[in-house]
Amino acid sequence: MEKAVPRTMEEFSTACGVSRPTLSKFFEDPGSVKKSTRRLIEAKLEETGFQPNLYARNLNRKQTRSIGIVVPAITDPFYAQLVTRLELILREEGYWPLMISPHGRPELEREGLATLQSLRVGGALIAPLGYDSDATALARFTGQTPCVFLDNGIDENVPLVGNDNRQSIRMIVDYLCRSGTPPVYINTPPVNRSSGQRSASYEAAMQANGHAPLVIEGSGPDPWDLEKVGYDRMQAMLAEGLPGQTLLCANDRLAFGVIAAAHEAGLKIGHGDGDDLRVAGHDDHPLSRYSAPSLTTMAQDYDEMARRACARLLAMISGTDDDDAQQVLVPAKLVLRASA
Amino acid sequence: MEKAVPRTMEEFSTACGVSRPTLSKFFEDPGSVKKSTRRLIEAKLEETGFQPNLYARNLNRKQTRSIGIVVPAITDPFYAQLVTRLELILREEGYWPLMISPHGRPELEREGLATLQSLRVGGALIAPLGYDSDATALARFTGQTPCVFLDNGIDENVPLVGNDNRQSIRMIVDYLCRSGTPPVYINTPPVNRSSGQRSASYEAAMQANGHAPLVIEGSGPDPWDLEKVGYDRMQAMLAEGLPGQTLLCANDRLAFGVIAAAHEAGLKIGHGDGDDLRVAGHDDHPLSRYSAPSLTTMAQDYDEMARRACARLLAMISGTDDDDAQQVLVPAKLVLRASA
Repeated sequence: MEKAVPRTMEEFSTACGVSRPTLSKFFEDPGSVKKSTRRLIEAKLEETGFQPNLYARNLNRKQTRSIGIVVPAITDPFYAQLVTRLELILREEGYWPLMISPHGRPELEREGLATLQSLRVGGALIAPLGYDSDATALARFTGQTPCVFLDNGIDENVPLVGNDNRQSIRMIVDYLCRSGTPPVYINTPPVNRSSGQRSASYEAAMQANGHAPLVIEGSGPDPWDLEKVGYDRMQAMLAEGLPGQTLLCANDRLAFGVIAAAHEAGLKIGHGDGDDLRVAGHDDHPLSRYSAPSLTTMAQDYDEMARRACARLLAMISGTDDDDAQQVLVPAKLVLRASA
Repeated sequence: MEKAVPRTMEEFSTACGVSRPTLSKFFEDPGSVKKSTRRLIEAKLEETGFQPNLYARNLNRKQTRSIGIVVPAITDPFYAQLVTRLELILREEGYWPLMISPHGRPELEREGLATLQSLRVGGALIAPLGYDSDATALARFTGQTPCVFLDNGIDENVPLVGNDNRQSIRMIVDYLCRSGTPPVYINTPPVNRSSGQRSASYEAAMQANGHAPLVIEGSGPDPWDLEKVGYDRMQAMLAEGLPGQTLLCANDRLAFGVIAAAHEAGLKIGHGDGDDLRVAGHDDHPLSRYSAPSLTTMAQDYDEMARRACARLLAMISGTDDDDAQQVLVPAKLVLRASA
């Protein structure tokens, strides 16, 4: 029932009676051919459903219009949110995002980089797994392809766009100290630099507020199963006796697990008089406004991070990158909700 | 500092002193060349970091080893979980998954299909947006490429692997009716067939239990922002007076919003004597065990759905598909937690 679709550029050229060179110009930049020709080609594309083979074209170019995106795991909403914004921006800019997630596995991260290299992507936005990453494979890739690191860096030679952990942790520690008992810090497992930066910022902020810092290290069989890490850590603390009435979690997913364990133990969470415990997080996870109680947290500026990362990468690709800052750290905003 | 990497198959052939045909055989199937040759090639690959251009090779074949995956939005954990399982299975099978998410936008779904077509994918696993999908573009794509629909279908000519909504809704309705007051059903906005199937199953199950069904329709500016849909609907119900003491939500994300609004209103959720309200969901969202209280729900069998969908698609691709079932409906499991 379907009309036969032209398979090759030749067939399409014949189908619409437009020369190959003109077609190539059109696919390079539709604005570069006569309006009438453009309308004719677009009509034929619509009518036949012909799809020029983008890679076949890309292979004949120095550089493709495709951009690789690599994040540790799309099941982590932080990365899912970031990827969504990056893809929408890149499409707006006329680039073609190709997202690969290694699902937390170093060997798949290495394989993903190899795939992007074999696809001759014009550049890549990479949130590395972190300490588990194959540093050699990453260095080889970033040495040959324009790259910007997201969220956390791994190599000083590659620009990084991420959250300003120093500013954001300082802000929420200051708030918690002013509004109640000083916070105990629940840390993530040490998967990347960012986790170390946040706990260091917590310690500095506590000292600046004249309080002794107390960091409780999170751990678990799967360091990316953060709700479970928080849940298990909270159960252990409840058994040993809580180290404080205010808990600051390194991120919201830890906080969800902490709140779940506290709720099961019959504790009331919030900043009211009748409440037993304050819990705060970091990131503004999409579900943090719907937790019970809703979660006080630091909102990472996904939009700004995505905008800056794309702008920097596209400048690097087009050779117009005059920015020599190795790090772009985006400040986060304090979001006051019911939990603290 | 980096050693120059061979750019072409010719250069790599020279670098390791292995003929082009042998190299092609190796990249087709490493087991098809002599063990010593294989070791030599693998050592050179490791040493030089050479990446054969997979697409350049694929273009010269009838069929590529790459498989497209299209899901409405990776920010929805249901799809993020499913994609993760699909990708891991396909990689195991020696295929190369290429995931594209239209982020809930019909025009990006259409563009994504065009992209996959231009990449000559060997097949695709597609969870269509639903009623917003461009049916013509989908029919054109599925008419030319082996496809299996996931989660919800849109075209009877394409096999579907999804949850058995009739079985799963029936099971949780039976449980709720036996263990307390009959459930009122909170529906999602009507985005796809699956939502209609679930509410119909609810009505049938209620009648089978001798109760009058009551469906409360969910709605919102963004039908994919399901927590907000549930939250707003619950606030409205609390203002008008609750239609019942047991609420069955069409999925867990709705339930999170419902629980958040109920918690803010000071209602106690659970199946105990002191509790005001029972809330149940559907899907077993990764966070449903960490909500406060933890959520009673129907666990969709992600693993089985992913396994069946991949097996069916790979059979279609290899021409060994002797299965004429147009639908594979996978039963879900009842997960009893604290909320109902």
